Amino acid sequence: MEALVKIKKQQDDHKTTIAFGNTSIGGGKFAIIAGPCAVENEEQIFMTAKLIQNLGTVFMRGGTFKPRTIPYSFQGLGVDGLYLLGRARQKYNLIVNTEVMSTDMVELAANHVDILQIGSRNMQNFDLLKKVGKTSTPVILKRGLAATIQEWLGAAEYIMNEGNQNVILCERGIRTFEKYTRNTLDLSAVLAVKQISHLPVIVDPSHGTGRTDMILPMAKAAMAIGADGIMVEVHPNPGQALSDGEQSLTFEQFENLTGEVARLKKVFNYN
Amino acid sequence: MEALVKIKKQQDDHKTTIAFGNTSIGGGKFAIIAGPCAVENEEQIFMTAKLIQNLGTVFMRGGTFKPRTIPYSFQGLGVDGLYLLGRARQKYNLIVNTEVMSTDMVELAANHVDILQIGSRNMQNFDLLKKVGKTSTPVILKRGLAATIQEWLGAAEYIMNEGNQNVILCERGIRTFEKYTRNTLDLSAVLAVKQISHLPVIVDPSHGTGRTDMILPMAKAAMAIGADGIMVEVHPNPGQALSDGEQSLTFEQFENLTGEVARLKKVFNYN
Amino acid sequence: MEALVKIKKQQDDHKTTIAFGNTSIGGGKFAIIAGPCAVENEEQIFMTAKLIQNLGTVFMRGGTFKPRTIPYSFQGLGVDGLYLLGRARQKYNLIVNTEVMSTDMVELAANHVDILQIGSRNMQNFDLLKKVGKTSTPVILKRGLAATIQEWLGAAEYIMNEGNQNVILCERGIRTFEKYTRNTLDLSAVLAVKQISHLPVIVDPSHGTGRTDMILPMAKAAMAIGADGIMVEVHPNPGQALSDGEQSLTFEQFENLTGEVARLKKVFNYN
Amino acid sequence: MEALVKIKKQQDDHKTTIAFGNTSIGGGKFAIIAGPCAVENEEQIFMTAKLIQNLGTVFMRGGTFKPRTIPYSFQGLGVDGLYLLGRARQKYNLIVNTEVMSTDMVELAANHVDILQIGSRNMQNFDLLKKVGKTSTPVILKRGLAATIQEWLGAAEYIMNEGNQNVILCERGIRTFEKYTRNTLDLSAVLAVKQISHLPVIVDPSHGTGRTDMILPMAKAAMAIGADGIMVEVHPNPGQALSDGEQSLTFEQFENLTGEVARLKKVFNYN
Repeated sequence: MEALVKIKKQQDDHKTTIAFGNTSIGGGKFAIIAGPCAVENEEQIFMTAKLIQNLGTVFMRGGTFKPRTIPYSFQGLGVDGLYLLGRARQKYNLIVNTEVMSTDMVELAANHVDILQIGSRNMQNFDLLKKVGKTSTPVILKRGLAATIQEWLGAAEYIMNEGNQNVILCERGIRTFEKYTRNTLDLSAVLAVKQISHLPVIVDPSHGTGRTDMILPMAKAAMAIGADGIMVEVHPNPGQALSDGEQSLTFEQFENLTGEVARLKKVFNYN
Repeated sequence: MEALVKIKKQQDDHKTTIAFGNTSIGGGKFAIIAGPCAVENEEQIFMTAKLIQNLGTVFMRGGTFKPRTIPYSFQGLGVDGLYLLGRARQKYNLIVNTEVMSTDMVELAANHVDILQIGSRNMQNFDLLKKVGKTSTPVILKRGLAATIQEWLGAAEYIMNEGNQNVILCERGIRTFEKYTRNTLDLSAVLAVKQISHLPVIVDPSHGTGRTDMILPMAKAAMAIGADGIMVEVHPNPGQALSDGEQSLTFEQFENLTGEVARLKKVFNYN
Repeated sequence: MEALVKIKKQQDDHKTTIAFGNTSIGGGKFAIIAGPCAVENEEQIFMTAKLIQNLGTVFMRGGTFKPRTIPYSFQGLGVDGLYLLGRARQKYNLIVNTEVMSTDMVELAANHVDILQIGSRNMQNFDLLKKVGKTSTPVILKRGLAATIQEWLGAAEYIMNEGNQNVILCERGIRTFEKYTRNTLDLSAVLAVKQISHLPVIVDPSHGTGRTDMILPMAKAAMAIGADGIMVEVHPNPGQALSDGEQSLTFEQFENLTGEVARLKKVFNYN
Repeated sequence: MEALVKIKKQQDDHKTTIAFGNTSIGGGKFAIIAGPCAVENEEQIFMTAKLIQNLGTVFMRGGTFKPRTIPYSFQGLGVDGLYLLGRARQKYNLIVNTEVMSTDMVELAANHVDILQIGSRNMQNFDLLKKVGKTSTPVILKRGLAATIQEWLGAAEYIMNEGNQNVILCERGIRTFEKYTRNTLDLSAVLAVKQISHLPVIVDPSHGTGRTDMILPMAKAAMAIGADGIMVEVHPNPGQALSDGEQSLTFEQFENLTGEVARLKKVFNYN
């Protein structure tokens, strides 16, 4: 992986920790980021926010601009979703992330959430990478579905090269032949980027497998290999979800997952 | 491919022809779009433009904004490159295309070239797709390197849904295990989109193979299956090219290719 | 592709031609090998043999031992199929090939057909490769569905290392994400092995695409890139075929294909 | 995955446990199978056997017939290796497995080892599958490097259909684009086959990653998802190994791994 030798900022000895108040991503913590695929309405997002607060898991995700294969699918609530997310964040005192898909929305989104997410389809949307790189808001950078490790780290470099060092990598499954799972979660890539780069790395077992029944075991596997956290989809009523219902945990399943994660933190030497 | 049933504009019986003065892409023609990977300087682009004019091939490509894996690689001449391209277009009376990577540049680029290109990394940059969809400038939409046919046509739909029906699909090779070639040119995908959609489809054997010695045979194969044209990289001095020299034809090789294409047009019933 | 430097027998300047009476595979010819996926009964195989004889295409294929994903699918007629094939070969004076799947059957098969075929699943069944390598019967070696070029040539080397130099390579499509086609026919791999090795290379557009409507255009593309022939599935009644009916040509379609191939031989400088 | 509905023997409610004396694979145990890629000489295999005995891990692997890409690479010690392995098994009272590559060797191998292994290249060598299916010796069936889950289970069915129900599935990494790791270990496939079939499933992190530094974390991940064991490569002197040295653990690393596995058994509810 010779070309990576050129990647200057990733050669330091230190490991990056991204602080949020009195918690962090990286630095020996195991973060749980949870929430619906898409923000749908106030009731849905507030119920979910309350659950997250009650379980003490702090980080919430919620899609407001949705990247969809065809333009006739539900595209998310857009700016209205962003406002809803901002209100849930305030009311329940959560650290919130949402995906941004256009440079125009970066500033507005950064005013309403704590973390900006770059989706896998936009991993090499260099214009967008540079734009979030000009803010100081932490960024979750998802791996492209057929991206090599070098391309993924190169994309991170586009963000950091503009000044924003607060990059969190997120493995979300690669495309393979196998159709039993939506994607193939590539845990060895997580190990690889932990070795090569200084950035924290989280895992998305919801998109990575596309199956509710695989989220918990894959979350445990993520802990076993030393990932810095997971991002999972949770919905008050997965059967009614406007998108990705088949990979969303119920509240009960999510509570069970948080219990298991708590139990395993000591086992795997997390803080 | 059930989801495609939903794609409304692609269900017509007619086939789209995109007219440029007295020539076209689609409509039974076989177009040759040629030029350097990147516009480097006036001499390089003018020499190439002159060659294209002399050979009567009319269409010229030239990259001015270059998508590169890491930010420290040559990124193209940017706006200066666009001006150079515009001048070559005027002087040699060519139909010119260049890749756009940011929504900000779409309008400016549309003023200086005839065709806007969306690269494979941006195939699902929906913001950019919508932006070029709001112009009336023809768009070449490259297939993503791991995109399914449905995702590729879905991306085209994002452009057409904004009003711009002038979309030209371009197959440029998919990522596979094989490293002898840079990518694997997927000619059956060209056949598939010719069956399913009404849009013209061209083939890029330069990126598709990454090897100068495979460009001519793959160009002939593209004619054999009924593609609407090819896009190939040509450089006055491939050994000195700032990017992709190993897949650029010399002027002599390009002249040879145009001769072969001319010979085969009749064989394969092109106009 | 450094490891190939070690492959001794493939470094000669000459190109191998495999003679069959007064015709050959390689040596500037374009061979058409046609026949049903599976030999089903006398009527079916004799009708097909007669058609092939009438059209003057000489080579016939027919599966007698069928590699199937699960053991409860039709496994071919076995030895009875081999006898039927042998009788059709005699009666219609054809050059016949069939797949062998076990070392036990190699000798018997070699007594009834002219060419032994190693299927893609057995490309690295080294025991079987060595066994056919000990005969002098020509061998068609199909590329494994995820094999690299180096692995494919390494497999050929196992045959040749035992003494049998009569190896014909056959590209039959690689597995990719795309499900619109059964596989993705990799024509650049054909160019690659034509460059690197001395062996003749044919293309199987039936398995390569899995779609009747793509066989003819892909056969033309195979000619355009200089392949040494094609292998296609033909069946008197594809709708009733016991396997692979959706990729079998009717007699009429096959006759049309042979006409097109004849027309293009001169265009692409075949003998 | 409709076709699997047809797979009759895998629809039972029970889960298969394969007993070896007073231990087992399956049945709530986590097995460690360790040993060199290839049996090289008496000293090497006896030293390794002694280590395994001392650590109480019971299962030993050792390759005697090696599937290699080209015929000029080291092919294993063959029958002599089998005898050596048999002697080490006797002396150190171990349960031993070795790969068989030809039907001729199945009976002899079954006389000297306890488990027969079918390698990934031979996953669809149906002749070999049937032959081991006619024995009563337990079989480790590795997944092919581009095999779907359905194809893998179909191959298992070929063995079971002949009467031998003692099949252990082994995930050993699939081929993907990424070259940082040798393969991509697909843990969600392990979950899938645990759901769909009744067979025990183990994981090979040595071939799955090709990197010594990833074996331990991936072994832990395998426990986290409920796999029935691991197979790892261990060598007295990996730097001198005749094959796969870069993915072989030293004795010290292996001892460390067994300690970690012991610690985690309780955590993940293994017996």
